[in-house]
Amino acid sequence: MTESPSTPECTPARTGADARLAARSGRLDRHTSGQAMGHVQGNVVILPAALATDFMRFCQRNPKPCPLLAVSEPGDPSLPTLGKGIDIRTDLPRYRVWRDGELSTEPTDIRALWQDDFVTFVIGCSFSFEEALMAEGITLRHIEQQRNVAMYRTNVATEAAGPFSGPMVVSMRPMNAADAIRAVQITSRLPSVHGAPVHIGEPAQIGIADLSKPDYGDAVEVRPGELPVFWACGVTPQAALVHARVPIAITHAPGAMLVTDLLNRQLAAF
Amino acid sequence: MTESPSTPECTPARTGADARLAARSGRLDRHTSGQAMGHVQGNVVILPAALATDFMRFCQRNPKPCPLLAVSEPGDPSLPTLGKGIDIRTDLPRYRVWRDGELSTEPTDIRALWQDDFVTFVIGCSFSFEEALMAEGITLRHIEQQRNVAMYRTNVATEAAGPFSGPMVVSMRPMNAADAIRAVQITSRLPSVHGAPVHIGEPAQIGIADLSKPDYGDAVEVRPGELPVFWACGVTPQAALVHARVPIAITHAPGAMLVTDLLNRQLAAF
Repeated sequence: MTESPSTPECTPARTGADARLAARSGRLDRHTSGQAMGHVQGNVVILPAALATDFMRFCQRNPKPCPLLAVSEPGDPSLPTLGKGIDIRTDLPRYRVWRDGELSTEPTDIRALWQDDFVTFVIGCSFSFEEALMAEGITLRHIEQQRNVAMYRTNVATEAAGPFSGPMVVSMRPMNAADAIRAVQITSRLPSVHGAPVHIGEPAQIGIADLSKPDYGDAVEVRPGELPVFWACGVTPQAALVHARVPIAITHAPGAMLVTDLLNRQLAAF
Repeated sequence: MTESPSTPECTPARTGADARLAARSGRLDRHTSGQAMGHVQGNVVILPAALATDFMRFCQRNPKPCPLLAVSEPGDPSLPTLGKGIDIRTDLPRYRVWRDGELSTEPTDIRALWQDDFVTFVIGCSFSFEEALMAEGITLRHIEQQRNVAMYRTNVATEAAGPFSGPMVVSMRPMNAADAIRAVQITSRLPSVHGAPVHIGEPAQIGIADLSKPDYGDAVEVRPGELPVFWACGVTPQAALVHARVPIAITHAPGAMLVTDLLNRQLAAF
């Protein structure tokens, strides 16, 4: 019997640079959850410069679902404020290419699609605040049960900017009341990764008819004595892109985020 | 027709010192609500020194219902850290004298009862956080309806110390979810006046059978779409005193607080 060597896939990256290198080399082509623990991960939206101002205003007007961590120079695939040597064309495990609001392909590299006028937006992601919640002893059921978080389109409209508009999308985590109060405190410190919840309690009040039927992700049980706690979600800008039917847009594939060199700890506002 | 002169009672005191002088002179003998707006008011407990250590440990172990703002020297009726020239024997509008756990009298002056071994405890009061909530645009129904806040004994036990124990008492304020989230943020900054809520939502989870039947104060309606939000309450130490059947204790009468020279603004932790 020989010992099986540990494959690179079995060893999560320790640093943001390691995770990006794994994605760049094709060793990491799926979720980034669990990679480079402690490091900020981001939602990615890439758009032609002609739409960039409208999209940036959309983010500025909707800071809870779309907290901007960085915006690139047009045509420049680097993001120096988020990490050394980032090449956004290769450093995500997987991309989604959207044409006229329809999902076109899911490549692992977008060098062939890159345009000189592309602007990259990196938007804060709930992985950061989930790590902060877990670090303070709050159990997150979807993680415990190895599911995706449950996400819902609400009847809360985003503030429109140019062609970008649509409903706010929220993620939901069930908690007892004491954890919900603590979660408000913890996530209030993290405005750049969605901040405090946008709703607690009755789902119908924000236009969610049935918690067992999420619009994205997996259903997660809310047990007796628990409150559903809702946060603004980074899927909101993707929904706005689709709604706007822009000729071309590229995003990360679900869960396949940009892993940065920033530490989650550095995001705390106080 | 002659103009009726404005009586001193009609003009709320502007400063803590003015409010205390009004109480001392007998012009103010009821509630201090609305007096010296912006100034910290406090719950008062006066006990013989032999019980002071146990009571102080009780407060230390139960900081949410019993946040200590000041403790006097034995026998000294002044509280220099809370205000210039305070004489705790005369500066409350009205007192309650408790003997063996029973309410004995409600005098407006306790000079005749003062003992050389009396220690005064001043405990933060919800007036401070209510002012902070209202300043941020949150409507408080009991204030709007000019009622006392609704208070309930819970099934949450305080941490005992010596003879002091008993249930935590909470106050309840109904709010929509957005205001409840904001209220957690605002009151988290104010740990010395009860801090963040201790519960949101289902009253039965903390042993409250019927919101329409408060144990203290007035019932306040919770409307559809609202969450009952519960804060630890300064009545908790009074309940513990009664429970302990101490030979003698003196407290403020309900709503007749010590008005200090401190500003509510100064209490904010961040």
